[in-house]
Order: sequence, then C-alpha cells, then structure tokens
Amino acid sequence: MSTSQSMAIVFDTFGTVVDWRGSLIAELTDFGRQRGIEADWNALVDAWRAAYRPSMDRVRRDELPWTKLDDLHRASLDRLVREFDIRGLTEADHRHINLGWHRLKPWPDAVAGLIRLKRRYIIGPLSNGNVSLLTNMAKQAGLPWDVVFGADLFAHYKPDPETYLGVCKLLDLEPHQVMMAAAHNSDLAAAGELGLMTGFFPRPTEYGPHQTRDYGPESDWDIVATDIEDMATQLGA
Amino acid sequence: MSTSQSMAIVFDTFGTVVDWRGSLIAELTDFGRQRGIEADWNALVDAWRAAYRPSMDRVRRDELPWTKLDDLHRASLDRLVREFDIRGLTEADHRHINLGWHRLKPWPDAVAGLIRLKRRYIIGPLSNGNVSLLTNMAKQAGLPWDVVFGADLFAHYKPDPETYLGVCKLLDLEPHQVMMAAAHNSDLAAAGELGLMTGFFPRPTEYGPHQTRDYGPESDWDIVATDIEDMATQLGA
Repeated sequence: MSTSQSMAIVFDTFGTVVDWRGSLIAELTDFGRQRGIEADWNALVDAWRAAYRPSMDRVRRDELPWTKLDDLHRASLDRLVREFDIRGLTEADHRHINLGWHRLKPWPDAVAGLIRLKRRYIIGPLSNGNVSLLTNMAKQAGLPWDVVFGADLFAHYKPDPETYLGVCKLLDLEPHQVMMAAAHNSDLAAAGELGLMTGFFPRPTEYGPHQTRDYGPESDWDIVATDIEDMATQLGA
Repeated sequence: MSTSQSMAIVFDTFGTVVDWRGSLIAELTDFGRQRGIEADWNALVDAWRAAYRPSMDRVRRDELPWTKLDDLHRASLDRLVREFDIRGLTEADHRHINLGWHRLKPWPDAVAGLIRLKRRYIIGPLSNGNVSLLTNMAKQAGLPWDVVFGADLFAHYKPDPETYLGVCKLLDLEPHQVMMAAAHNSDLAAAGELGLMTGFFPRPTEYGPHQTRDYGPESDWDIVATDIEDMATQLGA
C-alpha cells in the first residue's frame, strides 16, 4: 500500500474512537444513584443503541425528512423511558441524558494515537453524529481533530455515498487520498467501494456481552491494526 | 457584557488571523527570484486581493453559481497574470501560486491567543475560504481550531446571513452564545445585526500602504481588544 497518497484519515466515532456503551452506562448509573431513580440502565443503553440504525434508516429511506442524530436520539429516548417505565425524569433530565452522547469517553489508545496521526495527516471524524455533538465530544475527550465532519453537513447518514464523497469534496482530495478508519467492516465496505482507502481495528467489547461481529477484518482492508496507536505505527506517524 | 453566555468564538481569517499580504508577497518574491521570473509581485498581490470582494459579490448576486474561493482566486489570478504580462508560468505554477492562500502565515499573537481561548471556548474560523483552504492553513500555521467553518458549507459568502446563522445551527447555539471576531467592522456589523456577539481588534498593516479603514472600532462591539492575546485576557482565558 502506498500511504504517501493518503493525506487525510477520517474516523468513524461511536465505538471506533469512543466507548459509547461503557460511558453511557457509567454516567446513567451514577445519575440514577444520585437522583434515587431505579432502572435497568444497562438495558436502556443497549435498547437506545439498538434504535440507532433503524432511526437513521427511516431518514435514509425518506420516511423522515433530514433529522440530525441528537433529535433521533431524543425521540428514541423518550419512547424507551415510557417502555421501561422509568419514573421521575423531568424535561431537563431528558435533555441532560440525551446530551450524554456529547460526553462519551475515548478508548484508552485513542487520544495518544490521534495525536501521533495528526502530525502527519489531516484527521477528523466522519460520523453519523451532528457537528455540535462531535465538537463538544472532542472538547471534553481531548480528541485533537483538525476538522469535524458530521452527518448534518451532508444531510445524509452513512453508508450513503454523499457522506464519504462529501468529505473528499470538502477536503479537495481524491477518494484514494482519504482513508476511512473504523471498527466496523460495513462502514469500510461502503467507503472502499467509492475508492477511499480503508483502515480497520477491532473494538471487541463495544457491545459488551451483546457483541456478535467485527471481531476481525472481513476483507482485505488497506490497514489492519490492533488499535489507533498501532495504526499510527503502521502509517509511520 | 456577560461572557459566560458566549460559548463559541468564530474568527474571520484573512487579515484577522493571518497576514495574507505579507505572506503572499514574501512567497511570490522568493518564487520569482528562484525561477528568474520578473514581476511587480506586490502590485499583483494587491490586485489579486482587490478582485476578492467583487468576485464573491458575483456569486452573492447569483451572477455566478456557487463557486468556492479557491476557484474564484484562480480565475482572478489567471486574468491578472495576463494583465500584468507575467511570462513563463506553467499550469503547475498557477496551481502552486493559487494554493499560496492555503499557506498564509499567522499574525504573531494569533497562535498563542487562540491556544488560550481554546481552553475555555469552542473556536473555529468562519471564513469566506473553503474548508480545504482553512484546514490546510491551520495545519501549516498551527491554528488550533476545534472545528472549521468554510463558506462552502453554506454555499454562501459573508456577509450573507446564511453563514453566521449556519454556524449557530451547526453548533446548536443561539446567536448570543456565539461571538464573531474580526479586524473588519463590516463583518461584525453583519454578525451583530443577527444577534451574535462581536469582538474587534485592529490589524492596521493588513493592506500595507493601501490601508484606508478598520484602524479602530466603528461601533460599540462587545469586546474591543488590541489583538487575539488581549482578547483572551479580556475573556478570562
């Protein structure tokens, strides 16, 4: 692989850079304890994430007009609070809980690996999250992005081609000069089909006991690493 | 002024953060010397900048479809090379010279001031430059942006309201939570009319001997500083 042609690396975010499940469960467990609100927070978080793809797919199929992820998350949360019969949450609580996605914590290798990659490449998220979510997350987690690509810039969710090609257009780079990095084979498959380079590393605990896939590379990706630090090593950064 | 409400600060870039005139004249003078190409580079740079506002205004009046700044700059450059009768430039030279706008150098206070402000606020450019120009400039100049707002995100040039309000929407902030910072009173007037906060500092040598305005604040801006470091001090950063 000629990595000298890869001038920008864009990262899937949820699961790839940050540990959404561990972060949300920890935060909600604390919140429930402090507020004396009982709930199966683990199950709520898993159900919330299970609603993620179906809610975006409604937008992708034009059953909903463009709706940014914060608003999809909020609608799913409101439904799940009713279904789980969680009592005592105010409107301000719903807002606070929903913004938990802005406060997700990075995997242990993420910040150090990104700092190394940033020396040599343009780095940014290419996430289904909205720009405000990704910007707030980066501030809190110390993610040293050069530029932030949220799905709201394109009014499309991955794996729609408008997202991957939209990044190339905004960076004025050819697809082969941009690498998509993700812990999800499906994301890389969509990017690779459009000519982007691909970098994989696994996050085998992303879904906790419910993980069923993405333990390893399922195709001949340009880079296969153990984590972001290893990816930096392989890319000479 | 209550600055606690101001959560993001977006900066005009050309002239406000970077010294376009000094940078381009230095680079082109070097280039001409190395290549043995004679020209009045100072005059070329001044004429190039003089073409900036009229070229964007053609887009703003719908006489041209959306055209990003790199392409407006290139069309102006090609015309001026003919008018100045500069001989011996190849197509690659034109491309290289045009990308000089990606390599502009910051004013001496800019990087230190932005690093301080970044500790406390979300910071980014809000520039008529395109995202690739601003991202490349930040990499080369060490501008520590959290997020990059180029005019191509909005398909509008400042002072169109779509730019200022587009930033607020992408950051999910109210206008009064966003401060526009610029060395140009007209930029602040447009932002302030939409409810954004405003921060001014002068760049009295931006246009060299041709400077005719913006030596001081022309309205009651929320912050009036001597430079970005002083702005950081006034904002407690």
